[in-house]
Amino acid sequence: MKIRCEKEQLLTAVQIVQKATASKTTLPILTGIHLMAADGSLELQATDYEVGISMTIPAEVIDPGKVVLSGKFFPEIIRKIGGKTIEIASSAQSSMITVSAEKTEFKILSFPAEEFPTIKKFESNNSITLKDDVLKNLIRKTVFACSTDESRPLFTGALLEVNAGEIAMVATNTHRLALKKTILPESAATAKMIIPGKLLNEIYKILNFDVPTDVRIFWLKNQVAFLFDNIYIMSRVIEGQFPDYKKVIPAEFSTYCILDANVLYEAVERVSLLARDGEYNIIKIKFTPESLELAGNNPDAGSATESLEIAPEGEPMEIAFNAKYLLDVLRIAGLGQVKFHLKSPLSPVMLKLLDDSEYTYILTPIRTN
Amino acid sequence: MKIRCEKEQLLTAVQIVQKATASKTTLPILTGIHLMAADGSLELQATDYEVGISMTIPAEVIDPGKVVLSGKFFPEIIRKIGGKTIEIASSAQSSMITVSAEKTEFKILSFPAEEFPTIKKFESNNSITLKDDVLKNLIRKTVFACSTDESRPLFTGALLEVNAGEIAMVATNTHRLALKKTILPESAATAKMIIPGKLLNEIYKILNFDVPTDVRIFWLKNQVAFLFDNIYIMSRVIEGQFPDYKKVIPAEFSTYCILDANVLYEAVERVSLLARDGEYNIIKIKFTPESLELAGNNPDAGSATESLEIAPEGEPMEIAFNAKYLLDVLRIAGLGQVKFHLKSPLSPVMLKLLDDSEYTYILTPIRTN
Repeated sequence: MKIRCEKEQLLTAVQIVQKATASKTTLPILTGIHLMAADGSLELQATDYEVGISMTIPAEVIDPGKVVLSGKFFPEIIRKIGGKTIEIASSAQSSMITVSAEKTEFKILSFPAEEFPTIKKFESNNSITLKDDVLKNLIRKTVFACSTDESRPLFTGALLEVNAGEIAMVATNTHRLALKKTILPESAATAKMIIPGKLLNEIYKILNFDVPTDVRIFWLKNQVAFLFDNIYIMSRVIEGQFPDYKKVIPAEFSTYCILDANVLYEAVERVSLLARDGEYNIIKIKFTPESLELAGNNPDAGSATESLEIAPEGEPMEIAFNAKYLLDVLRIAGLGQVKFHLKSPLSPVMLKLLDDSEYTYILTPIRTN
Repeated sequence: MKIRCEKEQLLTAVQIVQKATASKTTLPILTGIHLMAADGSLELQATDYEVGISMTIPAEVIDPGKVVLSGKFFPEIIRKIGGKTIEIASSAQSSMITVSAEKTEFKILSFPAEEFPTIKKFESNNSITLKDDVLKNLIRKTVFACSTDESRPLFTGALLEVNAGEIAMVATNTHRLALKKTILPESAATAKMIIPGKLLNEIYKILNFDVPTDVRIFWLKNQVAFLFDNIYIMSRVIEGQFPDYKKVIPAEFSTYCILDANVLYEAVERVSLLARDGEYNIIKIKFTPESLELAGNNPDAGSATESLEIAPEGEPMEIAFNAKYLLDVLRIAGLGQVKFHLKSPLSPVMLKLLDDSEYTYILTPIRTN
């Protein structure tokens, strides 16, 4: 193999496919990045068998071929190397690959290319196409609510539900749930699959284009793929039965309160400052007719209280929250307003964003005595 | 105790004295910050018995007194609390201290103030006074060369030598040595003391004023103090005999080379990229009559070479360096030029900065094969 390509394009591709390389593995080849040069282009691939990412960039192909380079050193080299054009060349005599630009020449060890499990790209008519910013919004507003506990894999993923021209993305760790819906005109597809949260977060980061870009999502029974720009990402889906989120959303409420998310965010940050160091990070909020009274406590450090001059509507009530779960949704709300919907001190609380009626956050209160 | 003070001033003071709190200790009181209110001012102190820092800020003292607050929570509270004015109040009934601003009120546990080992500030006529930027320059150009190996405490400090109107600061880890001199007119003081490198780095960070500020340094046999603005910092000095740095500086050379520090920095970064992952981080530089040939190698990853079109003067020579020690001084040189002075492949190399004749860096080559 011998190719020349633009450094910036190669760097982008290397950084994207690198996300799918295995870090710890009994199969060292999975830590590598597969390069395949043919027909004026260079395709980079990486896979850890769960996720596979492929990206193709233009290249001057002097000699077609395949090599597998270290997923650790190759990206570092491309990041640091000078110049605008990079040449990559293998030789028949050795497994060393030459990577060169300007006055710098690297010779790096390669893996046997024939041992690399290249991605078996699938196609499917079960698909939807949406704009990058729509998908990013679905991910941003829900995936943070996933669990990170790998012993319960179901909750490390987000449910993607497609039905009758509507998409819903839902994530929960069983203590809180985030649901974002969006309309998808002219789509007849139906689907229900659990996509790994980590993958969605990576896709969120990769979707960083200057111009609106279409993302096509398509799926088989156990696999889902994302296709956009010159990038193909495929992943297994998480097996299991996602809880029926519609049942979790309470229907009736007795107390309501609208506030600026950033004002409440800062207040919660303050009153949880000492509590955070304790075991549970609990704060209490008292909804009185005249104000919100926030309180946090840590027997080993001290306590904090803060009062917000806001008049809730309905029944007075005191509820205890995990401060982190509250901060998470307030961060999503940014400079907008949130509306609390409360029923009783132990009933799930619903939060809505005033600037996004298609978003719902459910938070289970904490039982304290 | 009851006082009111400006949040920004208190935050600055808390962040500065916090650096002297003990993190791990068998004496919990040393993790605290001592506050003493009297005569229109609030003095904050912290000490871990090695270093003591005191800073005084203006305060409205309603009730003089002393309290000791958590060195962990108190700074976090001051950082996060809203408003411009903070009130701190103790009560006769409880060990809880109230810290309040605007609508937020913290009650935090305090340590018994009488148990705090307040700093015994000393005075001395053995002193010098220099501008903050002069001291910062002495620290910045030398202290990075200290050892971090606590089992050889001597080399974790920098030597401060004052003699006949000249100051020298010297640091070494025995593999490389950095020496910065500066003229101090109108000073008759003489001194030779080893100051902990960590402390000098903290002082460097604290010396962050908008206007030129005088720093007075004074000392007793085993202690040194820095006085500037409303800050008093004292520390033990490190005992032992610092090596005679004058003997380390070679007198004769056979090869010279002048180059842009940033050009060499980037080249060294690249060729050491693979070597860095190995055990020794060695790069070789061949000084030929036409060019510099840099090479790095890691048997487990690959090798790198780079050529710089620079013509050294004198004998051709190949020398092996620890790449990190070379990068360190090139970083100090910034956009300036450095001049290599070489004698033989195993003789110490001298580097000078063309824009600072009072700076010398000595680097011991590495013996290979």
